[in-house]
Amino acid sequence: MTPNWIAVDWGTTRLRAWAMQGAQMLQARASDQGMGRLAPEGFEPALLALIADWLPASGTIPVLACGMVGARGGWVEAAYRSVPCPPLDPRQAIRPPVTDPRLDLRILPGLSQADPPDVMRGEETQIAGFLAGNPGFRGVLCLPGTHSKWARIADGAVARFATFMTGELFALLARQSVLRLTLAEATPDAQALTQAGAQALADPASVPAGLFALRAGALLRGLAPEQAAGRLSGLLIGAELAAARPFWTGAEVVLIGAPDLTTHYETLLLAQGVRVRRQDGAALVLAGLTAAHRLLHEDP
Amino acid sequence: MTPNWIAVDWGTTRLRAWAMQGAQMLQARASDQGMGRLAPEGFEPALLALIADWLPASGTIPVLACGMVGARGGWVEAAYRSVPCPPLDPRQAIRPPVTDPRLDLRILPGLSQADPPDVMRGEETQIAGFLAGNPGFRGVLCLPGTHSKWARIADGAVARFATFMTGELFALLARQSVLRLTLAEATPDAQALTQAGAQALADPASVPAGLFALRAGALLRGLAPEQAAGRLSGLLIGAELAAARPFWTGAEVVLIGAPDLTTHYETLLLAQGVRVRRQDGAALVLAGLTAAHRLLHEDP
Repeated sequence: MTPNWIAVDWGTTRLRAWAMQGAQMLQARASDQGMGRLAPEGFEPALLALIADWLPASGTIPVLACGMVGARGGWVEAAYRSVPCPPLDPRQAIRPPVTDPRLDLRILPGLSQADPPDVMRGEETQIAGFLAGNPGFRGVLCLPGTHSKWARIADGAVARFATFMTGELFALLARQSVLRLTLAEATPDAQALTQAGAQALADPASVPAGLFALRAGALLRGLAPEQAAGRLSGLLIGAELAAARPFWTGAEVVLIGAPDLTTHYETLLLAQGVRVRRQDGAALVLAGLTAAHRLLHEDP
Repeated sequence: MTPNWIAVDWGTTRLRAWAMQGAQMLQARASDQGMGRLAPEGFEPALLALIADWLPASGTIPVLACGMVGARGGWVEAAYRSVPCPPLDPRQAIRPPVTDPRLDLRILPGLSQADPPDVMRGEETQIAGFLAGNPGFRGVLCLPGTHSKWARIADGAVARFATFMTGELFALLARQSVLRLTLAEATPDAQALTQAGAQALADPASVPAGLFALRAGALLRGLAPEQAAGRLSGLLIGAELAAARPFWTGAEVVLIGAPDLTTHYETLLLAQGVRVRRQDGAALVLAGLTAAHRLLHEDP
């Protein structure tokens, strides 16, 4: 079977592509040619290097891309769409000039929020993928990660969202601050994580006092690296949850992401009496791109 | 005049030495041979490279050192002294073996606190320097910096202290996180700093929500690098002050450090009704080492 369109998720560090026949995925590929390492003229060659043999001998094939590829400093800038709005509107995708005439390329825009200022690129497509499978969902989505996103959803639209640098903060503190001497590359202990997370949620003002205490705890009491890593992760996740309280108070929360990460958020939110479910995020980008493709080419 | 002792402040990144005649400073020198770049066998050569011509032709000269030189991984480990205790007790200094027979070297220990766990190395000497000039002081000292220290002082002793990684967090976020794209190497705007600091103090739980907002503010509203840097610094200092509230509530606070840094802490604390004064920290290490030398050699 030959593809009749190509889906692309182009983030800062990774380029992923899927050969598609309607809603059916024929083949998946990935490369390390993320947006972060490419100059504008490098995008088309990086894409062709990954998908050249999926292109038709003649004619064109639709290629639909989301993510940082549309950021300022990416291939071309796809201006943000402002919330409240549905997560995707493929008619507002932009079509950068391409050299290979077979590429009918569209880049989906991200979302912005005026006050407080916030932006997302890529997660809106995961949100659309979730909504494609859960039409009529009303509640809050949380996508933990390097930059965690919280989004309130109603009537098929993103009403409001917020970004937290939790994963990036953890990586910087664990690998580059004085805490690296204590944490090394240890896997966070789950129990230490939820304990510290509950403490941070109960008293978020105390979080800054808990950071250097991990180093001192290692020096004075032999605090194990896994315990220290668990506590650090818990303090940062707890601080995120405390700051995101307006999102989850009284709402149903769906946690979208890798199971080993969302399970910690789930434990902490359940302890607050929040209704929570978890969903693996791996398939949602493709579901969102598929929904966008259908809007463009099947429901004109 | 020839020196009769040598004072040394040996931190992670810098080595500083002073040729002394009693309390009189004859000459000051510094090098970049900090503890962080030296293996144990590298300390004596690094010290000699800086002070060789201060050593007597015959006999020995007392050399008194403080700071990270006495940490695990330094020249030799000088075990912490546990608070509550006076900031310095030079009789508990340790004397590492040296090759050059003219060096009568002592390394001063740092302080530790069991619960919550905390440690300091070097700041205790600054505190001793402050107390030498302010005997009978009762109140709180705050030494802002890479790792800010807060210490409650009574009866000539450190009763309790706490460390905050505020300066290190700022450097990591400003130079290595996604915020580097916005802040570059901009000088923090003072007004933005005190505004964000007051906000963080009033609602410390909200601080995590303010970080990525700096990037989004730059993308959506053209937030200037100086404003963003000011807000970042203010959020982190405000979060430190909120966590350190048990120290400064109802106390007189003396801020010790570089004037461009302590002025921001002063502004925020004054707004909370705290009695504050500031003191430049540059001379205090030497004052502390001088007090320790006197204890060892003049008041036996």
